[in-house]
Amino acid sequence: MINFTPGPSQLYLTVEDHFRRAIRDGIGSLSHRSKEFETIFRETTDGLKELLSIPKENHIFFTGSATEIWERILQNLVEEGSFHLVNGAFSKRFYEIAAQLNKYPRVLEVPFGTGFDDSIRVPETAGLVAVTQNETSTGVALPLDFVHRLKERSKNSLIAVDAVSSLPYPEFDYSKIDSVFFSVQKGFGLPAGLGVWVVNDHCIEKAKSLLAKGISIGSYHNLPTLWAHGRNNQTPETPNVLGIYLLSNVVRDMLRKGMNKIRKETDYKAAIVYQALEKHSYLSPFVKEKEFRSKTVIAIDCGQHFTQVKEALLKKGMIPGDGYGDFKKRHLRLANFPTHSKEQFENLVDTIAGLNG
Amino acid sequence: MINFTPGPSQLYLTVEDHFRRAIRDGIGSLSHRSKEFETIFRETTDGLKELLSIPKENHIFFTGSATEIWERILQNLVEEGSFHLVNGAFSKRFYEIAAQLNKYPRVLEVPFGTGFDDSIRVPETAGLVAVTQNETSTGVALPLDFVHRLKERSKNSLIAVDAVSSLPYPEFDYSKIDSVFFSVQKGFGLPAGLGVWVVNDHCIEKAKSLLAKGISIGSYHNLPTLWAHGRNNQTPETPNVLGIYLLSNVVRDMLRKGMNKIRKETDYKAAIVYQALEKHSYLSPFVKEKEFRSKTVIAIDCGQHFTQVKEALLKKGMIPGDGYGDFKKRHLRLANFPTHSKEQFENLVDTIAGLNG
Repeated sequence: MINFTPGPSQLYLTVEDHFRRAIRDGIGSLSHRSKEFETIFRETTDGLKELLSIPKENHIFFTGSATEIWERILQNLVEEGSFHLVNGAFSKRFYEIAAQLNKYPRVLEVPFGTGFDDSIRVPETAGLVAVTQNETSTGVALPLDFVHRLKERSKNSLIAVDAVSSLPYPEFDYSKIDSVFFSVQKGFGLPAGLGVWVVNDHCIEKAKSLLAKGISIGSYHNLPTLWAHGRNNQTPETPNVLGIYLLSNVVRDMLRKGMNKIRKETDYKAAIVYQALEKHSYLSPFVKEKEFRSKTVIAIDCGQHFTQVKEALLKKGMIPGDGYGDFKKRHLRLANFPTHSKEQFENLVDTIAGLNG
Repeated sequence: MINFTPGPSQLYLTVEDHFRRAIRDGIGSLSHRSKEFETIFRETTDGLKELLSIPKENHIFFTGSATEIWERILQNLVEEGSFHLVNGAFSKRFYEIAAQLNKYPRVLEVPFGTGFDDSIRVPETAGLVAVTQNETSTGVALPLDFVHRLKERSKNSLIAVDAVSSLPYPEFDYSKIDSVFFSVQKGFGLPAGLGVWVVNDHCIEKAKSLLAKGISIGSYHNLPTLWAHGRNNQTPETPNVLGIYLLSNVVRDMLRKGMNKIRKETDYKAAIVYQALEKHSYLSPFVKEKEFRSKTVIAIDCGQHFTQVKEALLKKGMIPGDGYGDFKKRHLRLANFPTHSKEQFENLVDTIAGLNG
């Protein structure tokens, strides 16, 4: 069975081997205060910077989940009045968490399945703009140009980008983004239990300025504390050592393969699915506007044929993801992650095409 | 090599097998929204309740670490003025986190290596009493009677007990404790990356009452949210599924062995070490008062002989933990966890005794 659910998804093809070596080498009981852990930490952050072209001067920290990072971003970067672009369930949750933390967020909401155009205005007083580059719930990806131009229209704001279900695919211009984050169980094909948070120095400074005003920015996972430990390749708490070790290994494998190749394969796999859906007699892409169609999470509108399509895929050994929330029994969602091969997607497309009636 | 460091410590003896089965059975990519995950969640929480004699009506939740639980306890259970019994580095950190969260904590501090007696007074206005039952930094354990009697002298307070490096050993009376927590890389012998938080209904009610006053209690890991998901054997975020799976299996193994036997073995192993130290020509227990000596983390005062003792142990394949903080080059700390066998401790004691000069 091949797992096409958009997270946790199929493990990256090399993970089982890394697991076995981890057990053999005692990574399961490795002290996070050891030199060996510091090496793993450094290799992981250096490797991620190389893989994703993140500037050396940025910082990479580890948390328990991307959900935790939503909370940490709001605690550390927002005095009040974060501004949220909401177009799906996950961007909405980011907004709701801001409200739960008493950050008095503002929101610009558009219907699920759609994106934003250049007519949007960011309130001048918004200290943070929160945007979900890839909406896992609906298969909408915001074009990178749009994400990068947010900085121009909100010069006083920090820009935080949720790329949970798109990285390592998108080629961000990190000079236009202050923070980006993801979790490892999506595109990196790893077991869940680790969030990865990238920030620049503006974020660290902002957190320090909140602290200086007497605003709580949390404790062990506030940015100055993460930074003080991270510069020594350390973590404030006992982290998911095994998860970081596995990530370092998958990053190395991806570097060996090369992001160009991974991106080209992702484009190819997405193209053949969308093409098959465009031509299909009853299936269609849920996202109507081509520029907003995600390459990494593809939402299929099955209309009344949900069960039939799902069963046809399962019969061929392919596990699709159900729709999200209200669309649970109408959409199928397909992860198109680096672990999914061209051949697997060709089989998937054949199966979809074979359903034409 | 046998790892006697007090965390992360030696893996529990069955963990490697459970790891291999986890890989084979696809636990690394198991969806946390699946029925299979719900079964794992339920087996883990039911198993822990049985193993530790936790009342059925209590709730067990999972976090990224015990460090996270310090923060969650203070967010959810304290309006202001938590009261902290501090006698080591970890109880001190609990206190410091309260300050970082602007909870205006108060503290009763005694020297490292000592405990508390019944003369202590809890301020009447303290909404929470925070106590570290087993101080990993110094090898001080507070007698259970003392912990249980805290409730009598602070009728209006919730009692939160850090048992990070003692559970599953202590037999708590959960009617005298509102919350207890631990992390899995100590006594349970599992890879780090998971905290376990036990609370009763008074804790849930307290969190709700803070929320009703407009006080932020955090977001995805606040108690009402954890409770709403936990009652359906679910988690608010994508958790460390593999970690929970491994815990469920180790709990089952420990149930099979029986807590009586595990506790008796722990008592025996601790007794022979303390006896050897009492009789030793230059080594001694750091904790002078017998009633405060931890069974699960034993701190040895090596005086000027630190390097000599450490090397003698390493030469015999035993890895002791260094001292904590200022005691780094003076103390050795030994974990006495369920995974450490009587034979291993007998060898350890022989080596220590052999150093008598």
